[in-house]
Amino acid sequence: MQKYSESLRLQGKKIAFVPTMGYLHEGHLSLMRKGRSRGDCLAISIYVNPTQFGPGEDLDKYPRDFEGDEKLAEELGCDVIFYPTNQEMYPENYHTYVNVEKITENLCGLSRPEHFRGVATVCAKLFNIVKPHAAIFGKKDFQQLAVIKRMVKDLNMDLEIIGMPTVREPDGLAMSSRNSYLKGDERESALSLSRSLKRAEEMYENGERNAGRIIKEVRRCINDHSHTRIDYVKICDTETMEDSEYLDSESVLALAVWVGSPRLIDNHVFGEHLNI
Amino acid sequence: MQKYSESLRLQGKKIAFVPTMGYLHEGHLSLMRKGRSRGDCLAISIYVNPTQFGPGEDLDKYPRDFEGDEKLAEELGCDVIFYPTNQEMYPENYHTYVNVEKITENLCGLSRPEHFRGVATVCAKLFNIVKPHAAIFGKKDFQQLAVIKRMVKDLNMDLEIIGMPTVREPDGLAMSSRNSYLKGDERESALSLSRSLKRAEEMYENGERNAGRIIKEVRRCINDHSHTRIDYVKICDTETMEDSEYLDSESVLALAVWVGSPRLIDNHVFGEHLNI
Repeated sequence: MQKYSESLRLQGKKIAFVPTMGYLHEGHLSLMRKGRSRGDCLAISIYVNPTQFGPGEDLDKYPRDFEGDEKLAEELGCDVIFYPTNQEMYPENYHTYVNVEKITENLCGLSRPEHFRGVATVCAKLFNIVKPHAAIFGKKDFQQLAVIKRMVKDLNMDLEIIGMPTVREPDGLAMSSRNSYLKGDERESALSLSRSLKRAEEMYENGERNAGRIIKEVRRCINDHSHTRIDYVKICDTETMEDSEYLDSESVLALAVWVGSPRLIDNHVFGEHLNI
Repeated sequence: MQKYSESLRLQGKKIAFVPTMGYLHEGHLSLMRKGRSRGDCLAISIYVNPTQFGPGEDLDKYPRDFEGDEKLAEELGCDVIFYPTNQEMYPENYHTYVNVEKITENLCGLSRPEHFRGVATVCAKLFNIVKPHAAIFGKKDFQQLAVIKRMVKDLNMDLEIIGMPTVREPDGLAMSSRNSYLKGDERESALSLSRSLKRAEEMYENGERNAGRIIKEVRRCINDHSHTRIDYVKICDTETMEDSEYLDSESVLALAVWVGSPRLIDNHVFGEHLNI
């Protein structure tokens, strides 16, 4: 992959890259379409990265469907799928990790302490292997996008990071490979995430700026649905990821909720369009 | 620098890179000559990297002579000097660090706990900025070279790391910018490092394979000189940097000794040529 990418670069070709964990859905496809429009070559990776999963998380049962993914990628005009093994990515005596501090301390960093270290490390590796001019990530993983942008800037990596809007099911549920875990009426309960985002945006539009009051309402809304267990509901600064007491134009509502077995996340930047 | 390097790469030119903290001496020049022979473009950096200095270390008084360095670099046929400011390298809200684990736990990692994190981070940044095909480091900083090699391999950085032999003064003292701190008869005491390496190699050649016995003799030899205070004397595996009890073909004697104010380091891989 690295040799192929280097040969493309020597020919002056532009490489766009979408890193994924596979089990592709419409969210991934929107990133790939963006990449298709930005590069002479569209590369994607499919790799369920073990270092971003904690003990007891869903590494082993994370959904996989390489043949289905391959078909979707081909239809979309993807040129290369980079599909490495764990042995290739983390051989014996592997010892190097990229840590992005501060902005990883809140939100998902609280309940998944090693998660962003794994994300930053695997992205650093993938960027060095695929050598893209641009890499495209979804805004559903809001903190992840912030971590990648911070790493790229801090380590002077020569590529552009593009964030794309969250793609939702017609009823509002944010697309996620983990939605496949939802059983029976858990699917209905999973709507509590997007519904509560909508409720929060309505409060914001009606002039509410007190984070505590919005969070209280969001928690109530989620708890009204069965099968839900809140990990966190927070309102933070979009840049620093620190908790905000009062909302301004740079405030994001981020939430993580177990709905049955899967832990789902969603978020909304106040004042931005919310297509729910 | 990054744009210039990218334009060179697009022309198919090879870039060789020697990262330095300046105050260039014959050791650096040997790295630069190697780089000159390996690249169409020889780039060096001069940057006293604050993140690799601990509290109470010699960051503020580290010797600097940019004009002298510039002259030496030009004479040697160096094409570019990358000479960034701290503000450029570590702007406000800088939060990303590269950690190489395990092999940084012993030796200098014991007495300088953040040192290799700073070294790995700044080298990752410099490699991303200068985009070299090869980077050249001195073997005097044995553990540093191992850390850089490990990081490059682990993070799939597409460049070759070349290690070059330690350059010594005619009397055996390993070249170091920090030798400039030595006052009066401390210079004579500083020979205790290379003399003790020589003594250790003699023991090895006479069949000694017990690390403890060699270390004891090395410590005695260093302590025989005035102004010396040992930080560590260790015999390790060259790959894992773990302490060895018995010597084999992959054993290195590494030592760090304060001689007056400077802390000097030196090392020797048993069985290799030692020009003292």
